[in-house]
Amino acid sequence: MRIAVLGAGTVGQRLAGKLREVGHDVRIGTRTPREDATSYAEAAAGAELILNATNGGASLEALEAARAENLAGKVLIDASNPLDFSRGRPPGLSVSNFDSLGEQIQRAHPDAKVVKTLNTVNNEVMVEPSLVPGNHVLFVCGNDVEAKAVAVELLASFGWPAERVLDLGDITSARGMEMYLPLWLRLVGALGTPHLNISVERA
Amino acid sequence: MRIAVLGAGTVGQRLAGKLREVGHDVRIGTRTPREDATSYAEAAAGAELILNATNGGASLEALEAARAENLAGKVLIDASNPLDFSRGRPPGLSVSNFDSLGEQIQRAHPDAKVVKTLNTVNNEVMVEPSLVPGNHVLFVCGNDVEAKAVAVELLASFGWPAERVLDLGDITSARGMEMYLPLWLRLVGALGTPHLNISVERA
Repeated sequence: MRIAVLGAGTVGQRLAGKLREVGHDVRIGTRTPREDATSYAEAAAGAELILNATNGGASLEALEAARAENLAGKVLIDASNPLDFSRGRPPGLSVSNFDSLGEQIQRAHPDAKVVKTLNTVNNEVMVEPSLVPGNHVLFVCGNDVEAKAVAVELLASFGWPAERVLDLGDITSARGMEMYLPLWLRLVGALGTPHLNISVERA
Repeated sequence: MRIAVLGAGTVGQRLAGKLREVGHDVRIGTRTPREDATSYAEAAAGAELILNATNGGASLEALEAARAENLAGKVLIDASNPLDFSRGRPPGLSVSNFDSLGEQIQRAHPDAKVVKTLNTVNNEVMVEPSLVPGNHVLFVCGNDVEAKAVAVELLASFGWPAERVLDLGDITSARGMEMYLPLWLRLVGALGTPHLNISVERA
């Protein structure tokens, strides 16, 4: 599949590398094009699927630069977190409670099929879940059922079995997925490694 | 131990029942005293340990009514969540990101030893963790190490082994523990039961 990864930072490079490894034709989009990355719009124009791996604080701008017409009708996987470092560390979120970055992206691009996922784990764990033992999980949410199925299939190719990907419902569930980040950051601090994740046990 | 449970709702009654079951002398405090519950101040005055099980929106007021001198020097376990239902369901939080209810309580009562815990699970799971299979966890945080040890011991008597109680550090970690609630609420919706919890897997 032709995939545009928006964001040429650690997360974007990691995801692009894995996507190429499993056979996709990947173009990386970035704000300042360079040898290994084109503009956001150029990357998105030719793609069948878009993956937002930009910093949360820059995501809306990056997606605007990618242009609505290059996103329309396509699955747009959003792996970003609206971390707010303006008041130091640990960061808070720039949007939370009654809204989320996932929803902001969906509202800004109503013709794209936004699926929030991958934002709850470290970038190395995203593409190599076996780094962490146990039946730890990812979450997906979004308004389009078929788009979520495409995301689940992509995650399976990364090593996440479908039964370990929990569908939390429509895009408003991005609030919960993003608001988990402050706990995740505390866990990283307490356990001393970003190679961790949660599993969900139920009665 | 003489324990004051503040809050006569479902959570308070559940915790008080368990505390009595494991041998403690429990007094329940409530806003409007009645047969089975005294005033907040009366309950707190005679207690060696205070457990805040009021609704998050009423916690600061309840603790003020309990009076600072009745809390000073004591372990104050805070199990509340600052859920904000003012904009409907699902709720957001009335405090989040760069502050938390746990911190607000500690600031309002600097002489109390606030320990945040128990707020991440359903009240039935709080006192009967075996309702949920697996090595699922609770978190504790607070500024006083000895107070946290007291809380961990109390949790052990509820059925939470010490190795399943993760210490996240000082009271600022209450931000992460409280901001997990929106995800918890989505999980309850997706899995169809409040009898769930997370375990933490690490490399």
